[in-house]
Amino acid sequence: MGRLAPPWDRLLLDARLATLRDDLGGYGAIDNGVLAWKDGLIAYAGPRGDLPGEPAALAARVDSAQGRWITPGLVDCHTHLVFGGDRAVEFERRLQGATYEQIAREGGGIVSTVRATRALDEEALLAASLPRARALRADGVTTLEIKSGYGLDLDSERRMLRAARRLGEALGLTVRTTYLAAHALPPEFAGRADDYIAAVCEWLPVLHAEGLVDAVDAFCEGIGFSPAQTRRVFEAARALGLPVKLHADQLSDLGGAALAAEFGGLSADHIEWTGEAAVRAMAKAGTVAVLLPGAFHVLRETKLPPIAALREHAVPMAVATDLNPGTSPLQSLRLAMSLACTHFKLTPEEALRGATVHAAAALGLHDRGRLQPGQRADFVQWNIQHPAELCYWLGGDVAYAVHIAGRRVSD
Amino acid sequence: MGRLAPPWDRLLLDARLATLRDDLGGYGAIDNGVLAWKDGLIAYAGPRGDLPGEPAALAARVDSAQGRWITPGLVDCHTHLVFGGDRAVEFERRLQGATYEQIAREGGGIVSTVRATRALDEEALLAASLPRARALRADGVTTLEIKSGYGLDLDSERRMLRAARRLGEALGLTVRTTYLAAHALPPEFAGRADDYIAAVCEWLPVLHAEGLVDAVDAFCEGIGFSPAQTRRVFEAARALGLPVKLHADQLSDLGGAALAAEFGGLSADHIEWTGEAAVRAMAKAGTVAVLLPGAFHVLRETKLPPIAALREHAVPMAVATDLNPGTSPLQSLRLAMSLACTHFKLTPEEALRGATVHAAAALGLHDRGRLQPGQRADFVQWNIQHPAELCYWLGGDVAYAVHIAGRRVSD
Ligand SMILES: [Zn+2]
Ligand SMILES: [Zn+2]
Repeated sequence: MGRLAPPWDRLLLDARLATLRDDLGGYGAIDNGVLAWKDGLIAYAGPRGDLPGEPAALAARVDSAQGRWITPGLVDCHTHLVFGGDRAVEFERRLQGATYEQIAREGGGIVSTVRATRALDEEALLAASLPRARALRADGVTTLEIKSGYGLDLDSERRMLRAARRLGEALGLTVRTTYLAAHALPPEFAGRADDYIAAVCEWLPVLHAEGLVDAVDAFCEGIGFSPAQTRRVFEAARALGLPVKLHADQLSDLGGAALAAEFGGLSADHIEWTGEAAVRAMAKAGTVAVLLPGAFHVLRETKLPPIAALREHAVPMAVATDLNPGTSPLQSLRLAMSLACTHFKLTPEEALRGATVHAAAALGLHDRGRLQPGQRADFVQWNIQHPAELCYWLGGDVAYAVHIAGRRVSD
Repeated sequence: MGRLAPPWDRLLLDARLATLRDDLGGYGAIDNGVLAWKDGLIAYAGPRGDLPGEPAALAARVDSAQGRWITPGLVDCHTHLVFGGDRAVEFERRLQGATYEQIAREGGGIVSTVRATRALDEEALLAASLPRARALRADGVTTLEIKSGYGLDLDSERRMLRAARRLGEALGLTVRTTYLAAHALPPEFAGRADDYIAAVCEWLPVLHAEGLVDAVDAFCEGIGFSPAQTRRVFEAARALGLPVKLHADQLSDLGGAALAAEFGGLSADHIEWTGEAAVRAMAKAGTVAVLLPGAFHVLRETKLPPIAALREHAVPMAVATDLNPGTSPLQSLRLAMSLACTHFKLTPEEALRGATVHAAAALGLHDRGRLQPGQRADFVQWNIQHPAELCYWLGGDVAYAVHIAGRRVSD
């Protein structure tokens, strides 16, 4: 009689699992747990005692997690990670006392990032962005959203989105791309915002046809685009069957979150000024609240997002880096989780859900974010004794090993 | 005629140097710079054009810095890095709404760290602390202060200080030890603070005789020790010729900074509540102001240290992590620099000086903190285009290579 091949590829004994399974409560913790996977998907995530056989008979390779905590791979659901240049000198000028007007006169602000991004070809844009994506991954991120929005013309937006796709391939990360041409008004359209929105709506199907667009976003704000202009962009997305999300109510309440909900949006992001009616609309529409404490921190904001209302109406809260050169040069999702605890008073459990299962939902992904059979084997082993440490430490070498689709990635 | 051996060990071409030399202004920047060293000391730090010969004739080995910025090695002049356990669960309990009284009843607070630290032998204390020191080093720290203060009895304080010394040896870091038995009142002295201070003063010469004490510190605060008790500790230090420093005026103005200055203290640390008269006294005494934005951030404080007065009276400002399990679980000095900019409005240049030359002064060290001939060859090559990036990025893989006494250290 021939021996049967073990059913699973690999199995980790002696793990402490933070499964985030709803039925278990809290972190969904399982002590003395086992994680096993096959073909990049989780095959088993449960107690050692419930294993349906001897480990060696169940998996081709058996290892020990040596008591380490394992969480789902982190999901950063809101980044502007692909860009040229940086804004460190502008950061310095502000601290030296320069006003926003002076900085604008000196060529600073978002225009400077647009200029620097346009100046780079795809290769150079990729090279500039790789270290940032690598830093996120080293700290536990396995899935990543990346927005366009510093190109602001068809070719440059395309280059950003292509660089984003290639980043994912280069690092084994899942990258979801978001078309955010409605991020700022490019200089060549000065005074013609409606014309620019028309162009944005024309470029969208072109880039979508090239397979470069997973979702559509806009910056709905007094210093961005109006709700009416945002609506036009959203309608163009809807015509293509593309999901939408929105930079909403960050600096004022323009009804952005409600607009995102009206379009069944994946998420409304920032939402510091969102009121309770809009929160109810988000709950009804299944729109995730994406909290971005990095920008809140850097801009020294004081208006808090409506956390109590979000909790009350059971709107899922995600946490993301918003990694961008102007308002959130934040290259660690774990640090974003910490800032969410310190500034927004999220509990560490909320922050971890916000960087895993709810962040995945904000990207329309339901195959990841929990440690459960059938989910992708994206997970992180951590050098910690308690999951709260993920939010507690500021900095530090906390991630022990990052696995994507069952394969350990490393630098 | 025999060839002469080149005078220097190594030489790095094509560097951008942030020398922090006073005579150069700003960062003391030198473009197209050269850094050379011999026997662990800097032999040359200046423009390529001023080199007294051909590189290959000057050094046994010549490399290129490939245009990278080089700064002095960072100096973290205030840490409580050696401790047992952590306080992540307490952090979580607070965010779940537990009051300080509840947490104390549950056994939390500094007593829990004292308990966990006392429970570890020297080996275990070293093992628990090594990853934190390694994280600091990976981010650019080459010199480090470590305080006792979670032992609170002779043997446990000794163990902490010995672990601190061994940490330095294990990682090649310079570690300066500080005796901080006057950190909190141990349970066995409850209600007998003056008796405890008498014990603290008795233990000091013992540990000093064992070569374990470089400086003496106390926590002068309503919830710590009174100015009169602090004075007794300082007098014991003075009797041994040991320099003092002080946790001063963090939560209230007890005149701590003035007291530190009166004793010619190396530094007064925290100093959120310090008034202008004390700032003048610090200026006169040459006492460094050590700013600790980590605790300010974690505790969500609003009272800012007297930055304008410190600038006006030219009191050197240092920046440190205050790495400790209760109020500042901060394992990155670069992040402390960023927090100093965001919360205290330091300029990036002030923050960099605060983490190099002024931090070294706060430890009584004048052989490091600048890139100048004769200084220790402790330096960092960075993946940046401008020194302001050291404060601008939150997280990220920014340190390219860390050198201590001319030797590259790595993990
Ligand atoms: Zn954004
Ligand atoms: Zn301290």
